[in-house]
Amino acid sequence: MHNPDHSQDVTAGEVLAPYLHARAADFLRGLRLHTESGSDTAGAEEAARTLRGAARRIGGTLHTFRPLLDTAWADQLRTELAWLSGTLALEQACTSRLIRLVDALSRLSNGSGPVPAARGSEGAGLTVGAARAGALLERQLTLARTRAHSASLQALGSARFHAVADAVALLASEVPLGPAGAAPATEVIDAPADLAERRLLDAVAALPLTRAAHPYNADALALAAGEAQDAPWHQTRLLLRLHRYATEALHTGGEPDSVLYEAARALDRHRDAAEAASAAATAARTPRIAPATAYALGVLHADQRHEVEAARFAFQRAWRRTTAPVP
Amino acid sequence: MHNPDHSQDVTAGEVLAPYLHARAADFLRGLRLHTESGSDTAGAEEAARTLRGAARRIGGTLHTFRPLLDTAWADQLRTELAWLSGTLALEQACTSRLIRLVDALSRLSNGSGPVPAARGSEGAGLTVGAARAGALLERQLTLARTRAHSASLQALGSARFHAVADAVALLASEVPLGPAGAAPATEVIDAPADLAERRLLDAVAALPLTRAAHPYNADALALAAGEAQDAPWHQTRLLLRLHRYATEALHTGGEPDSVLYEAARALDRHRDAAEAASAAATAARTPRIAPATAYALGVLHADQRHEVEAARFAFQRAWRRTTAPVP
Repeated sequence: MHNPDHSQDVTAGEVLAPYLHARAADFLRGLRLHTESGSDTAGAEEAARTLRGAARRIGGTLHTFRPLLDTAWADQLRTELAWLSGTLALEQACTSRLIRLVDALSRLSNGSGPVPAARGSEGAGLTVGAARAGALLERQLTLARTRAHSASLQALGSARFHAVADAVALLASEVPLGPAGAAPATEVIDAPADLAERRLLDAVAALPLTRAAHPYNADALALAAGEAQDAPWHQTRLLLRLHRYATEALHTGGEPDSVLYEAARALDRHRDAAEAASAAATAARTPRIAPATAYALGVLHADQRHEVEAARFAFQRAWRRTTAPVP
Repeated sequence: MHNPDHSQDVTAGEVLAPYLHARAADFLRGLRLHTESGSDTAGAEEAARTLRGAARRIGGTLHTFRPLLDTAWADQLRTELAWLSGTLALEQACTSRLIRLVDALSRLSNGSGPVPAARGSEGAGLTVGAARAGALLERQLTLARTRAHSASLQALGSARFHAVADAVALLASEVPLGPAGAAPATEVIDAPADLAERRLLDAVAALPLTRAAHPYNADALALAAGEAQDAPWHQTRLLLRLHRYATEALHTGGEPDSVLYEAARALDRHRDAAEAASAAATAARTPRIAPATAYALGVLHADQRHEVEAARFAFQRAWRRTTAPVP
């Protein structure tokens, strides 16, 4: 990953600093948005999104380029940023999961076929349960979202958050480097970025991509193995994100790689569908639900696992088009 | 569909007769197998399969080449053969539906993923219901199969069947032709076969093949529209069968078209999966079932609709490779 812009007299720290400064400024902008949002829900969501995006990028950069940084400082800040972005992500996750499940129920029970008026008896049976299943999911996920919202507000008012904000405010003007940070960028900056890329390539190489390229393989529908078989894809999603952030950090002026972005989106969709399937399965274990409700949740669970499989198919297709990473 | 073997002095009747004679002989062989099978289940199945295959081919040929035949005779025999093959098909359909559903439940609940030992909590919940759903389906489909078996035996012992058998026995030596049957084959035999092909091509042209070629389009999962959206595919299956039989009749010495056979198999699978999905939906409407059972049946229903979609994908792929029918 050679960057032609690094001339011999530019240090690694000087390459990384602008990116970290900019992301720290994003973070502080998110913080300001949060303070100003008050009871404005859209504003609060925008603030949380900005804070999370900046926290993830700073954390990712601290992780990948750790050898060039003050490692004790980097490790500590990274842990705190992971806590923050994880806490802030929950509310949005509950919202989008609910939307995904309600949309799927609507598609499943209302039909999008060419003759929706002529309903089959199968569909009629499902429609009854789908309404109840939708209400049950809405109740459960709204409760979870309310809890996540409280947890976010609590986190953003905590001393722990203020310490993170102070550390990021410092980062906006100065990056604590290690000894290697002062070395010429051309000598030391490629190795950490290459390692991030290598980890991604290894993870992708271990995925069953040939199988995923065969449509309707029904792999993701082996529900009992579901969670275990999903793990390597989730891990790849995190490694792809780290690779993308490392690329961003080193090519600050360049265009984002759209194919890599498409691959990342497929893995996001994979994660979302897997979690939505889990939420449907969890709802089905609610005591004393009607059989029709359980039936609709079963249909929904399988439908979302079908989406998991579709996301794997989309990922392998996007990945085969990537030109940037070559093993 | 020009057949180079028809020299000018061969009549249409002389082209069709060997095919009809041979299928009638098949029918009589199936009848002998049935008489000899006694309590031998495998023998009785083989007999029923032979009788059905011959009945379908004779009926299809009488339908397609009706203009060349004694039409009153052809219409009457065709009706009786349709009754017979329909009656004989039910038992086998129940058996294969049960096998399909039990296999799917096993795949869904036991997992075929790389780490089946590490079961997710989703799978554990499903396993409980899957066993009960399997037992329920087995009860319902075994009952249906027993009824179908009785109906088959009753049909094969009826005066109505003996009349069919007598008509087919005559067909083994003589084909009742109409006036056009005595005309030179080159002049009259292509039009009926071309019409069968044209009907097939028109039906396929009306199918949403472009959509089906896009994997994971989730069309077949619009459950409310399920039965209505399946109908044109089922109709195409019947027209493809008629076209294949017409081809068989006119190219008695030739190889069967393997791509067309593959397309036909995909439509068989489409029909089987659609009917299995219906059976799962029907079972889910059984009064007083446990929610876990209903849940597993919902998963199974969606899984079989996923199979319906996969079969459409397979059909369009096979169809695009067909070279024989050109519009």
